[in-house]
Amino acid sequence: MNTLPTDLTTLAEAVIKRAASFGCTIATAESCTGGLISSCLTSVSGASETFQCGFVTYSNEAKTRLLGVPVDAITDFGAVSDIVASAMAEGAVAHSGADLAVSVTGIAGPGGGSPDKPVGLVYLSLAQTGEDAVIKRYVFAGNRDDVRRSAVGAALELIHSGLEERRQSAEEVNGS
Amino acid sequence: MNTLPTDLTTLAEAVIKRAASFGCTIATAESCTGGLISSCLTSVSGASETFQCGFVTYSNEAKTRLLGVPVDAITDFGAVSDIVASAMAEGAVAHSGADLAVSVTGIAGPGGGSPDKPVGLVYLSLAQTGEDAVIKRYVFAGNRDDVRRSAVGAALELIHSGLEERRQSAEEVNGS
Repeated sequence: MNTLPTDLTTLAEAVIKRAASFGCTIATAESCTGGLISSCLTSVSGASETFQCGFVTYSNEAKTRLLGVPVDAITDFGAVSDIVASAMAEGAVAHSGADLAVSVTGIAGPGGGSPDKPVGLVYLSLAQTGEDAVIKRYVFAGNRDDVRRSAVGAALELIHSGLEERRQSAEEVNGS
Repeated sequence: MNTLPTDLTTLAEAVIKRAASFGCTIATAESCTGGLISSCLTSVSGASETFQCGFVTYSNEAKTRLLGVPVDAITDFGAVSDIVASAMAEGAVAHSGADLAVSVTGIAGPGGGSPDKPVGLVYLSLAQTGEDAVIKRYVFAGNRDDVRRSAVGAALELIHSGLEERRQSAEEVNGS
């Protein structure tokens, strides 16, 4: 049996292939998924051409120290917020030198939920050099493991679609 | 079915419990395992009290940029070496503020092996504030997934035993 679920590693393989096809490099910034996205990406043989690095910023201090997320953003909006998600993704691009980064911050549970921010709430963000960050909001069902797994799948899909847009833009610029 | 293998998440739970029992904080620095160690640690509910952050330094540039591994160490000894493993673990302690960090660098395959450094060669290191880094060398059998999985298990075991020694030392200092 494989260490990671085949549906996720298959998706990761598609991401790595697409990024490698036009030399795009990738970084990750993960809170609630704790390194699962980078684990999936690096399960692909040859990922080192494409995957630069991942930041697993689990504590708030790590989000600030490693990614430059403003303390005020965490204090005012909470670690699980659209603002912090985009700051994490933008910080990952800035601190890695990669072309593109995805971030995840969410409440995997079982604790930590509130009426405003229930267990299962997850923000993803995709940042790229020269583009505004994209932010997505989800409320995933299930237990801690289900929420983390759903978030990983959604993050890999987000990178995959972001890469396609970036590839098309690059082709338009090149006039091909 | 759980996202991660139960044998690894059970071991991760023991690590988190032991660290939490005396307020010790943990960081990780992963190359070939790509975030699997931090994924296992953060699968444990309540890990945020203990697990600070993880550095997934897949590229050589990331090892230097994020962890301060000297370029000369990588050039002279290779990214998969005892010297780089200990520099990664020490860098993770220095750059995270955690009490203890484990690092992994290895050749998961299928490519990248040589007679001197075969596929399956993995160095682990455990660094702690106020202690010399411990280095372990393994040659794990099997395919890319097997090597990564074995390395994660060995790394979790290494943290677990390092925590026990640290706890005993702390008790001796406290005279209890």
